[in-house]
Amino acid sequence: MPAINGARVVADLKRLAEFGRYKTGVHRPTYSPQDVASRQWLAEQFAGAGLDPVIDGIGNVIGRNNRAPRRLLVGSHSETQPHGGWLDGALGVIYALELARAFAGDPALQGLGIEPVAWADEEGHYGNMLGSRSFVGGLGDDEIAAAHSRDGKKLGEALAEAGYAGRPRELLDSARYVGYLEAHIEQGATLEAAGLRIGVVEGIVGIWNYWLTFTGEQNHAGTTEMSRRKDAGVAMVRLASRLHDRFASIAGPRTVWTLGRMLLDPNAPSIVPGRAEMQVQFRDTDTAVLARFGESLEELVAETDRASPCRVAMSPMSQTQPAAMDPQFQTLIEAAAERHAPGGHLRMPSGAGHDAQVLARRMRSAMLFVPSRNGISHHWSEDTSEEDIMLGAQVFADAAAAILTAE
Amino acid sequence: MPAINGARVVADLKRLAEFGRYKTGVHRPTYSPQDVASRQWLAEQFAGAGLDPVIDGIGNVIGRNNRAPRRLLVGSHSETQPHGGWLDGALGVIYALELARAFAGDPALQGLGIEPVAWADEEGHYGNMLGSRSFVGGLGDDEIAAAHSRDGKKLGEALAEAGYAGRPRELLDSARYVGYLEAHIEQGATLEAAGLRIGVVEGIVGIWNYWLTFTGEQNHAGTTEMSRRKDAGVAMVRLASRLHDRFASIAGPRTVWTLGRMLLDPNAPSIVPGRAEMQVQFRDTDTAVLARFGESLEELVAETDRASPCRVAMSPMSQTQPAAMDPQFQTLIEAAAERHAPGGHLRMPSGAGHDAQVLARRMRSAMLFVPSRNGISHHWSEDTSEEDIMLGAQVFADAAAAILTAE
Repeated sequence: MPAINGARVVADLKRLAEFGRYKTGVHRPTYSPQDVASRQWLAEQFAGAGLDPVIDGIGNVIGRNNRAPRRLLVGSHSETQPHGGWLDGALGVIYALELARAFAGDPALQGLGIEPVAWADEEGHYGNMLGSRSFVGGLGDDEIAAAHSRDGKKLGEALAEAGYAGRPRELLDSARYVGYLEAHIEQGATLEAAGLRIGVVEGIVGIWNYWLTFTGEQNHAGTTEMSRRKDAGVAMVRLASRLHDRFASIAGPRTVWTLGRMLLDPNAPSIVPGRAEMQVQFRDTDTAVLARFGESLEELVAETDRASPCRVAMSPMSQTQPAAMDPQFQTLIEAAAERHAPGGHLRMPSGAGHDAQVLARRMRSAMLFVPSRNGISHHWSEDTSEEDIMLGAQVFADAAAAILTAE
Repeated sequence: MPAINGARVVADLKRLAEFGRYKTGVHRPTYSPQDVASRQWLAEQFAGAGLDPVIDGIGNVIGRNNRAPRRLLVGSHSETQPHGGWLDGALGVIYALELARAFAGDPALQGLGIEPVAWADEEGHYGNMLGSRSFVGGLGDDEIAAAHSRDGKKLGEALAEAGYAGRPRELLDSARYVGYLEAHIEQGATLEAAGLRIGVVEGIVGIWNYWLTFTGEQNHAGTTEMSRRKDAGVAMVRLASRLHDRFASIAGPRTVWTLGRMLLDPNAPSIVPGRAEMQVQFRDTDTAVLARFGESLEELVAETDRASPCRVAMSPMSQTQPAAMDPQFQTLIEAAAERHAPGGHLRMPSGAGHDAQVLARRMRSAMLFVPSRNGISHHWSEDTSEEDIMLGAQVFADAAAAILTAE
C-alpha cells in the first residue's frame, strides 16, 4: 500500500491556493498571470518528484514518467472559476502529485508509475475542456483561432501572453497507460447528507442544452386588449410550466433539468413582451433518457407553437454524451474505500462535467469524490474537511495501486 | 363653430417636434435642454395667441386667459418618452393652442375662453404625473426633494438646471373653469382596426402594480437532485401560468393584465435560481374588478407559498384609481364627432394613464382620442395621418364650444 503523507497533501493544496487567493477561496482564471505562475510551480513539483515535466501548447502540465513500464495517468484541472474554491480540480492535481511521490518512494511498487497531469481550462474560460480535449486530439487549430473569453479576449492572445503559444500540444498515446484516474470534490451534498466520505463515480452525465425563442408582438400594456395580444412572456411561462410536469413524468431516478436562464424583451412593466428566450438544460448518465427528454421538448415546442399566438423555436446548443466509468476500476476504488472507511462510501453519478469524460472516450477511466461541505462549489466558500482530504488521498492511492497491479 | 386652421395645427406639431428630433420621432425627456427650450417656445406661442403665459416651479406652461368669463382648461403634456413619438401628449398641447387662437378670433364665441396648458412629466421621468398633480395640490415638497430619475439625477437638480427652481407652483382654482379637456393619440389599434376616426373616452383605467418575490436556494444544476431543489424559477413560472388562467376567468370585458418584468437570479444556465422576481400589473375602469384581481392574486401567492418549497411574497407598488369622464362632456364630444365623421366614432376606455385622471378628481373632465397608426406609441415610429390630426382638432374645438355654451 502506497504511504500517503496527508499533511503534505494539505500543505501543497494550501500552497497552490496562494496563487490567486480570494477570501478563503481562489480567483485563478485560465491563462491569468496567477494561473501561469501556478502551472510553473506545479511543473517544479513534478520535477521534484523525479518526473520530467512539460507544459504544452495549451497549458497542460504533465509530469512525464518515463521509467515505470506500467503507468496510470492521474490528474484534474488546476484553474478555478471566478472567485471559486480552493479545492475543486486542484484537489485532484495535488492527489496526483502525492501519488507520484508515494509510488516513486515505495520499493514494493517498483515498475508501477503515476504520471500526474494538470489539465488547462476545464472550467471553460475560453472553451469546453480545452486541455483534455487537446490531449485526446479533439481540439482543432481552427477552434483555437476562433475561441475567446466571455469578455472578448482571444484564446491565441492569452496563450501568447502565457508563453505557451508555439509550443507543441502533447497527444495521448493510449498504449502508454493502464487508464486514467481523477479525484474531485463532489460539488453536491449527497455524501455529506448521508454521512459518507467517499463517492465512487459510476458515470458522468451527458448535458444537453437548448435555446428556446418565443416571438410575439411588443405592445402597450394598457391599450392592447387581451384578445389582440401576442405576449411572448405568456407563451414562455406556459411552456415552462408544462415542461416541468412533462419532464417529471419521464425522468430517470437521477435525471435533473433546469430552466436557469430566462429573458423577457423589453422586460418593462407596462409593455407586452414581444420576445422571450429561455435555456433548457437536462442531465443524465443514460443517453436513452436524454433522447427521451429531447423528443419531449420538441413536442412541447411544437404544441406551444401551434396553440399560442406566438412563434416558438428551439435550437440545440451544446450536447455532451454521458461517459461510463470503468466497472473494474469502480470495484477497486470501492474496495479501497471499504478498507479505510467501512460502509462510508457510495456509488453515484457525477452531475457535473469533468475531464474524465473526455479521457474515457479513449481509455479506461474512473473518478473518486470527496464530500463538499454544504454541497457548495464554484464559490470561494467551498470547503472539505482536512480529514476527508487526507482520507480521500489514501483511498485514491490504494485504488491506483490495486488498478496497476490488477490483471 | 370655431374655425380650426388644420394646416397650422400640423405645422405647429412639426415645429414642436424639432425640439429633440430623433428619426421620425422625438427624444425630449422632462427638463432636458430640449424640453426646457420647447416649453419656452410654447409660452411664446401662448403669448402670440393673446394669453398671459407662465412657466411655473414644476415646469407647467399655462396660457392664462384672464379676459373670458367662462373658461375651459385644455391641454396635455409636452415631454416625450425616450426616443418616443412626435404626437402623444404634444398633440393635445397644440390642439389647446389652436383652440385658444380659434376662440379668440371668433366674435361668435365672445366671452368663451380656452386656457391652454402643457403639463410637466406626465411620462414619469422623475415621478408620476408631476405637473398635473402639482397643479391640483397633490405633490408635496417632500416628494420633490426625494424624487430622482431612473439614472439617479435628483429632481431638485433638474429643476435648478431648467431654471424653474424657486418659482411658485401654479395651483388650480376650480371655480375658474367649466372643466378640463384633453386630446391624445389612442396608443392602441382599436380605432384603426375598426376604421374609426374619433374615440370618446368613457373613463381612464386604474392601474395596480404588485412586486412578487420568490425565495428558494441557489444550487449547482448538475449536482443538486430534483427532490432537494428549492427552485425559485419553477415557483415563478408555475404561479405565472396559473395567474393567466385565474385572471382570464374573472376579467371584465376590457380588463388587461401583464407580467412585463421577470428576473431570475443569478440567471445562469447551470445554476438553480435561488431568487426570482416578477411584476404583476392589471388595469380596469371598474374598481370592483381591480379589487377582485387583487384578492385573486393574494390567494395565488398564498397557495404557491404553501405548495412550493420556495417562499413567495407580494408587495403592492403603485395603485391608481379609475377616473370616470364627465357624461355630459362625452355626449357633446360624441355629437361633435358625429357632425364631422358620421358613424366614425367610438366610446372607449383609456387603457393608458393621462393627466385627465388627475384633473378629474377636482373638476368635470373629458378626453378625445385620434387613431394611432398600427396602434404604435412610445416609439419614434408613432404616427397619425394628417387628415385624422386635422379632423380631431375640429371635433375637439366644436366639442369645447358646445361644452362652454351648454347649461
